[in-house]
Amino acid sequence: VSGELTVSVDAMGGDAGPGVVLAALARSIVRHPTVRFLLHGDEALLKPLLARRAKLKARAEIRHSAERVRMDEKPGQALRRGRNTSMWRALESVAKKEAEVAISAGNTGALMAMSMFQLGVIEGIDRPAIAALWPTKRGQTVVLDVGANIGTDAQQLVDFAVMGEAFARAILGLERPKVGILNVGAEDVKGNEAVRGAAQILRSANLPMEFLGFVEGDDISEGTADVVVTDGFTGNIALKTAEGIASLIMFYLRSALRRGFLSRLGALIAAGAFRALRRKLDPRAQNGGIFLGLNGVVVKSHGAADALGFASALDMAVDMARTKIIPKIASDRAMVAPLFQAAGNAGAAAT
Amino acid sequence: VSGELTVSVDAMGGDAGPGVVLAALARSIVRHPTVRFLLHGDEALLKPLLARRAKLKARAEIRHSAERVRMDEKPGQALRRGRNTSMWRALESVAKKEAEVAISAGNTGALMAMSMFQLGVIEGIDRPAIAALWPTKRGQTVVLDVGANIGTDAQQLVDFAVMGEAFARAILGLERPKVGILNVGAEDVKGNEAVRGAAQILRSANLPMEFLGFVEGDDISEGTADVVVTDGFTGNIALKTAEGIASLIMFYLRSALRRGFLSRLGALIAAGAFRALRRKLDPRAQNGGIFLGLNGVVVKSHGAADALGFASALDMAVDMARTKIIPKIASDRAMVAPLFQAAGNAGAAAT
Repeated sequence: VSGELTVSVDAMGGDAGPGVVLAALARSIVRHPTVRFLLHGDEALLKPLLARRAKLKARAEIRHSAERVRMDEKPGQALRRGRNTSMWRALESVAKKEAEVAISAGNTGALMAMSMFQLGVIEGIDRPAIAALWPTKRGQTVVLDVGANIGTDAQQLVDFAVMGEAFARAILGLERPKVGILNVGAEDVKGNEAVRGAAQILRSANLPMEFLGFVEGDDISEGTADVVVTDGFTGNIALKTAEGIASLIMFYLRSALRRGFLSRLGALIAAGAFRALRRKLDPRAQNGGIFLGLNGVVVKSHGAADALGFASALDMAVDMARTKIIPKIASDRAMVAPLFQAAGNAGAAAT
Repeated sequence: VSGELTVSVDAMGGDAGPGVVLAALARSIVRHPTVRFLLHGDEALLKPLLARRAKLKARAEIRHSAERVRMDEKPGQALRRGRNTSMWRALESVAKKEAEVAISAGNTGALMAMSMFQLGVIEGIDRPAIAALWPTKRGQTVVLDVGANIGTDAQQLVDFAVMGEAFARAILGLERPKVGILNVGAEDVKGNEAVRGAAQILRSANLPMEFLGFVEGDDISEGTADVVVTDGFTGNIALKTAEGIASLIMFYLRSALRRGFLSRLGALIAAGAFRALRRKLDPRAQNGGIFLGLNGVVVKSHGAADALGFASALDMAVDMARTKIIPKIASDRAMVAPLFQAAGNAGAAAT
């Protein structure tokens, strides 16, 4: 099987199982006619599933692995015992340059730990980040980090800004993305040392972006910035809080529309509009996390994703490989390195 | 003028001005027939406004102050130069025991700084917090801190838990409120040192509450806990992110309901349901912040609140004074003090 681009697939990851993964790939081959797949997982399960999909079969190769990473497994444990898992093997194909991209709907923490171990991080980047695409009034905004890192200093926040900016240019097609740091107020004096230090460095950096300074929580959905930079603790809580509020509002809306005959009738008539709204708010549409900062392209599909969700994560992975995002991050990171040294010296001089 | 309870009012605070404040008080006297008011502000403005409200006039006393704190003023600056402002004088009445409660719709930071300076904090509490009432699927949840403190350690988070628990018992009428600490996962090993340390202390504390351990962002709107404890940085960002998502969803909903004849018709018919939803999501209904940990009751009404919003903040202030929340916080705080010493000694022994 040959192709312009090879995607290495963890066919066993996620709650949905290999049936959903293969259905997603069957969708994808229509959109990506030159992509081939390496399917990592239990051959006994995958073979009959693939046999039923002739077109996909011509473009896919099964690579047997006996084990899988459980969704509730600790990352460290998965890393130690997981060399025979479909997740490990999927990443190994990227590490060995057999594939350009890896995709999994499995355990996020394990996928990040195995990715760091096998692929390493981009020169200069301290720790990779997980980015999320957030729907806004103006389109979408990249928010990072949303879960990988607890306790982040100024330099790591600058790294996140570089990675987010490179992603926005490569994938969202923006020439000079607007970048903001998430804070509790827009004034320079607000926030902790990390956000103030990062803002100072980014103000003097000559990166291909427009640095907005600080933005607040409500700016994310407003679409004020194309990239919102934050530490993984706050980012994860902001993302889950947002999911919670969306769920609460749908709950309110449903109960409001059940109250009284006129409301029911109105809801019935406007059913199409509500379906459209639900689709907008559907986490499967945004779907999972984009791993940035690794020396290799890895995309995490939502664990509960259906075929549509997995296929959209796969689109993202293919885009990231094609637009060569990794060298972009590496060169922008090299550009800010002297500023880190300057900030470090200034800090040392002040003490 | 005599009454069971005296409320000291900053009549000049907020964007809306004294007209709105007096309209709110006129509403309140119906609900609180034994409350009297001290109105701090510009006498030349307040006198004619009060003259038009005979019932309120019989229960209110104007205390002239020539200046006011601006909404964009730095807290430190307001504190230094603000002794003749309506905000300072409103708090002074509480400090001098002329009133049981102070209320202001003005500059939050300045109000907190002046409150700490004039009223002091409850014995043992390191820093006061601002609590918000968050609408949930099951009712409402107290979230704190939502803005006062940047950089919080384990003991301060425990203080917040104590204050939140006391508030939930006193104001929400819950016997053993469920308390959770906001984190990026429910497992014990997740998060930073502060949240893990606080959880350890709260697990061994014998407080009048049910400690749930860690909760995640989506648990807030779910109503999993009655009290959600977090540092001011994360809490402020979570709150504003939630406001942003609510605004985004209303934006989506409006545009979905304008698309096509049937959707428009449905929306028209179900208009009442949408009005009810908007009311639920209206920040004026939740309205501002509750200051906890001070040696005096201070409530901050939303800066843009109308008479309805200010009146609801006033209800909260009256409830807090009547239920004697301050001694409740003080006695529960005294109960956990030995655990702090134990944790401190364990920490010292470990190093």
